[in-house]
Formats: sequence, structure tokens, C-alpha cells
Amino acid sequence: MKKQIEQLKQAIRDVPDFPKEGILFKDITPVLQDAQLFATAIELFAKQTENLGFELIAAIESRGFIFGAALALKLNKGFVPIRKPGKLPYKTFKEEYQLEYGTDALEIHQDAVTPGQKVLLIDDLLATGGTALASAKLVERCGGKVAAICFLIELTFLNGIQKLGNYQVKTLIKF
Amino acid sequence: MKKQIEQLKQAIRDVPDFPKEGILFKDITPVLQDAQLFATAIELFAKQTENLGFELIAAIESRGFIFGAALALKLNKGFVPIRKPGKLPYKTFKEEYQLEYGTDALEIHQDAVTPGQKVLLIDDLLATGGTALASAKLVERCGGKVAAICFLIELTFLNGIQKLGNYQVKTLIKF
Repeated sequence: MKKQIEQLKQAIRDVPDFPKEGILFKDITPVLQDAQLFATAIELFAKQTENLGFELIAAIESRGFIFGAALALKLNKGFVPIRKPGKLPYKTFKEEYQLEYGTDALEIHQDAVTPGQKVLLIDDLLATGGTALASAKLVERCGGKVAAICFLIELTFLNGIQKLGNYQVKTLIKF
Repeated sequence: MKKQIEQLKQAIRDVPDFPKEGILFKDITPVLQDAQLFATAIELFAKQTENLGFELIAAIESRGFIFGAALALKLNKGFVPIRKPGKLPYKTFKEEYQLEYGTDALEIHQDAVTPGQKVLLIDDLLATGGTALASAKLVERCGGKVAAICFLIELTFLNGIQKLGNYQVKTLIKF
């Protein structure tokens, strides 16, 4: 498993000054583009989570959809999209979260989760933890229980894990 | 296969006046949420496309990612995201397309496809065909060949298929 994680880590591409100056962006597209690496990532997510007893995988727009949908298929779970405001057509719950400057928000369909259902949350990257925390609250507003939150990458220096202290967090790759 | 398609069709929810008045939106989230229906949709996509000899699946942001990523895992292909402008971190090609009022654009990483590679394009919905045509051009600008374009749903009254006349188009559900 260590060797596989190292392979994934090696494939992630650093893009300097994106989305703005001074930020070193972790570009996961080389992992996605390689059928073997993509399958490896999903296999590792599956190993980490398959015993958590959840029925649904909720994924955060947009890159989270890529991992969430593939994992849902692999583990035979339902898939729930958590999206930017105004994107989901039916009745929604909405949670705001803080950005460096200002706020943003995420939405979930009110009937996306049946009360009592256990839900695995997934996204590509844990940075400050704001979107993941808002997403966990959305699952709970539907009456669901967050089984765990998992990420491909954690940027440990941003300490987002602290914000998610109430949840089980699983990360494949740490930078 | 007919029975499975009918099951999917029955699960799709009509949401009136979304995203604006007078539009009857086809909400696919009930299909995604049901593990069995989601697996059925991916199984049907796989049957329609597995003999086309492609190496990559390129999917259009955001709902296309859900089907594209799951299908890529199932068929052991690489996954390429086609995204809204400013979302992809590395060097991109960009294609504009017409909206009812004004224009929008999509981007692909310049190194997403190796020249000569065959690529399957996928999205959830064929409406006027503008985003799919722009996406096909993006694949071709990378030097790739479009093996086929596939959709979960085609809104036949919008005649988007005409705009895609140069390509093989495969649709699971027609309204």
C-alpha cells in the first residue's frame, strides 16, 4: 500500500501560482489520465472505507465527483452530489462557509439522504476544511450520519484536520 | 436492456421552471442516489461503448464527471476532465460555444490526450449540442480522435444531434 501511495504522490503535478500568485497547486489530472493510477486510487479508497457500513457516498463538486462516483460504483453504493448554490434543481439545504475573503456556500437536495443513513463524504483535497465541514453539516441536516470524510490529498500545513475534529478523516496522500 | 432503460427513465424526476421559467429540468439525482440504478446506467454505457477501442474517457464538467469517472473505472480507461475556463491549472486549449444569449467556453489540458489516442466523450445530457461539439474540438486540438460521444439523456426536440453530425452519438434515454 505504501508503494502505491508513493506512485500516486509522484504522479501529482505541482503547478506554481495557481489559482493565484504564491500558491503551489497540486494537479491531480496526471493521476486521472493514467488508467492504472486512477484504479489504484479508487482501490485504496475502497480498502480504507469498505468496512464503515455506509450506504451512500456524497461528493463535493467538482473534483470530488470523479472519485466519489467511481468509488460508489466499485462499492455498490448510491451517489449524492453536493454542489455550488443554484445548481441542484430540487429543494435544497444550504450551508455557508468562510473563505479567506468573504463566504461561499454549498447545497444538497433535501431528499438526498434518508434519515438515519450512513454517508461517506469524499473530496480530492483537504485544505482548510471549510467545504468538508459545510458538507458534513449538509448530510446531517438531511438526517444522515457521516461515517467518515476521505480525501486523496491533505495539505497538512493548513491544519484543516482540526476543523473536522468531530469526524473520522481518512487521507491517502499527505503533503 | 429495454427494461433497464425504462427503469432509468422512470427514475428521472421532472423539475418545472429550472433553471428558469418554462424549462422542465430532467433531474438525474434519483438515478445516482440508487446504487442499483447507478450501476445499471454505467453497465449500459459500458455495453454501448466497450468495443470502440478508446483509451481515454473525457467528461464534461460537472455532471459528466459522475458518469465518466465511473465508466473509466469499469472499463479500465484513463479519465480526462473538460472544464469551465480558469479551473484547470496547467496549459490549456479553449473552445467557445454559443448560448441562447452570449457565449461560454470550455477548456482541456494540452497534454490530456496523446496525439492519435482515441477518446470517448461523455456527458449527462444532449440538449443543443454546443458543449459536446466544443468538447469534441478540444479533444481534436490535442491530436486525439473522438471514438463516440455518449449521453444519458437526449432531448430530441432540441435536435442537438444535428450539430454532432460528424460524430458517432450514443444515447441511453430519449425524451
